[in-house]
Amino acid sequence: MVLLLIGGVGFMPSFADRLADVVRAKGPLCVGLDPRWDSLPHAVRAQAGSPLDLAAVAGVYRHFCQKVLELVRPWAGVVKPQAAFFEYCGPPGLAAMADILRTAHELGFVTILDAKRGDIASTATAYAEAAFGGCVINGQSFPVWNADALTINPYLGRDAVEPFLTEAQKAGRGVFVLVRTSNPGAGLFQDLRCEGQPLYRHVAAEVVKWNAPTVGDYGLGDVGAVVGATHPRELAELRAVMPAVWFLVPGYGAQGGTARDVRAAYRSDGLGAIVNSSRGVTLPFRPDDPAWEAKIIAAAQQAHAELKP
Amino acid sequence: MVLLLIGGVGFMPSFADRLADVVRAKGPLCVGLDPRWDSLPHAVRAQAGSPLDLAAVAGVYRHFCQKVLELVRPWAGVVKPQAAFFEYCGPPGLAAMADILRTAHELGFVTILDAKRGDIASTATAYAEAAFGGCVINGQSFPVWNADALTINPYLGRDAVEPFLTEAQKAGRGVFVLVRTSNPGAGLFQDLRCEGQPLYRHVAAEVVKWNAPTVGDYGLGDVGAVVGATHPRELAELRAVMPAVWFLVPGYGAQGGTARDVRAAYRSDGLGAIVNSSRGVTLPFRPDDPAWEAKIIAAAQQAHAELKP
Repeated sequence: MVLLLIGGVGFMPSFADRLADVVRAKGPLCVGLDPRWDSLPHAVRAQAGSPLDLAAVAGVYRHFCQKVLELVRPWAGVVKPQAAFFEYCGPPGLAAMADILRTAHELGFVTILDAKRGDIASTATAYAEAAFGGCVINGQSFPVWNADALTINPYLGRDAVEPFLTEAQKAGRGVFVLVRTSNPGAGLFQDLRCEGQPLYRHVAAEVVKWNAPTVGDYGLGDVGAVVGATHPRELAELRAVMPAVWFLVPGYGAQGGTARDVRAAYRSDGLGAIVNSSRGVTLPFRPDDPAWEAKIIAAAQQAHAELKP
Repeated sequence: MVLLLIGGVGFMPSFADRLADVVRAKGPLCVGLDPRWDSLPHAVRAQAGSPLDLAAVAGVYRHFCQKVLELVRPWAGVVKPQAAFFEYCGPPGLAAMADILRTAHELGFVTILDAKRGDIASTATAYAEAAFGGCVINGQSFPVWNADALTINPYLGRDAVEPFLTEAQKAGRGVFVLVRTSNPGAGLFQDLRCEGQPLYRHVAAEVVKWNAPTVGDYGLGDVGAVVGATHPRELAELRAVMPAVWFLVPGYGAQGGTARDVRAAYRSDGLGAIVNSSRGVTLPFRPDDPAWEAKIIAAAQQAHAELKP
């Protein structure tokens, strides 16, 4: 067990080791929290009252996502709130996101904030401190998102990624760097052949280097990669060249990737990948369906079974 | 004048035309709002009272930035809040950012939200609606950031950029796509030679295509490019191949780019670029300096004079 001394709060296992423990216990399913008003159960939406405002909408998102956490808990150890859908409801939406992250933490989930942040130098540090260690003012620390990991975008280069790595290491957290995304148009830049290989392979090579000093007890490190389930060939190829890197695999379920497509992401020990499902697990019902909770449980259970390494 | 019919609110000039009008009137200076607690005037910080919390810190950020807007107004027509520093103070920080954007709008500034967003499909749409048209629930629209433009990251490819372009066009707004950033490590991926030219030239070529259908009365369109002042050679090269594209040029001032370095960004008609200064204009004092307001005015006036095309 790699134990890190976290400023003032004692020792805790590294992110990679905590993720491995949770995947051993509950399997590789990561439940994505992407609330969309029009898809939520009527019964939950009704709680917003009238007239509507952003705070009321955010309250509905909070209630729904906290319910999802309870329902999926037996079948998933990792959750991933998508920042965009909370930002869509403005500051009250982001306050709801912070509450949901806190609840997820209390329920024992490993939390990944999917915000795809990327900026330079001290600006990147500000995003990273918000994600991990919190805001520090006059020596006092105030938690902000307090997530276990953050997705980040590599386009800005080395000194844009390093502040995220530094802050993650300080706080015992991890990052997932976008390598090969799951969208149909991802190849526009990611597949360009650069000096003999596609751009995403260059990004993958840097991720391997950034990850190497953080490898823990399970042979996996704290600097992960986002690799879409919709590209099974690239998934297998990247698994081979990144044996010590955790993969966060989006695109399974509603986006078209199958459980079979994602198998290439697992290492032979069954670790190495978490597979995200958002709509497929959290919104598998029509909004007027009174049995929506049972449908979420069934969808989570099915994804859990399908994804077993 | 290109007039757009904006849903329910009548006709307004395009983003590119509004930006040109403001640059004609006030010059190319864009004032970056990057508040950092330790750099703010003691007199302003004192208003936070005690004990401190995130809401108190956010209140200080709001007060300082709204003061900066008043002070720089004669010398700059464009302001750019950096989302990271507001996110650093959590939801109250982001509420302050929304208030600052509203004040800037009321004072006649063109506002650029520097959030470097990037995600796929409906997730990108959620970020874009938050930035521009607002959150729509049951047919009612609630403004969120209501910025004139947003910075976006191209790494995720075509279907990640297009939702931002669509929402921007619907609302008469613009985007600035990261092409060549100002940080020393930017070249790690951006300078990779891909199929005969550096990656950033491939991104530039796509920006030219995305921008073409939006070109307005001044021969400039709504899809701009971020190109750092710290790379004057690339700035000149990109100006030549992107004649109808607005440049947002960071890196002038505190990051080391000079007024001379940025001249290559202007077209012969003096339009085509806005040049950002954050710390150089907004934090040109020691925190204990009682004359901080005068120093901001002097710094803005000097940047305005230096940057005249």
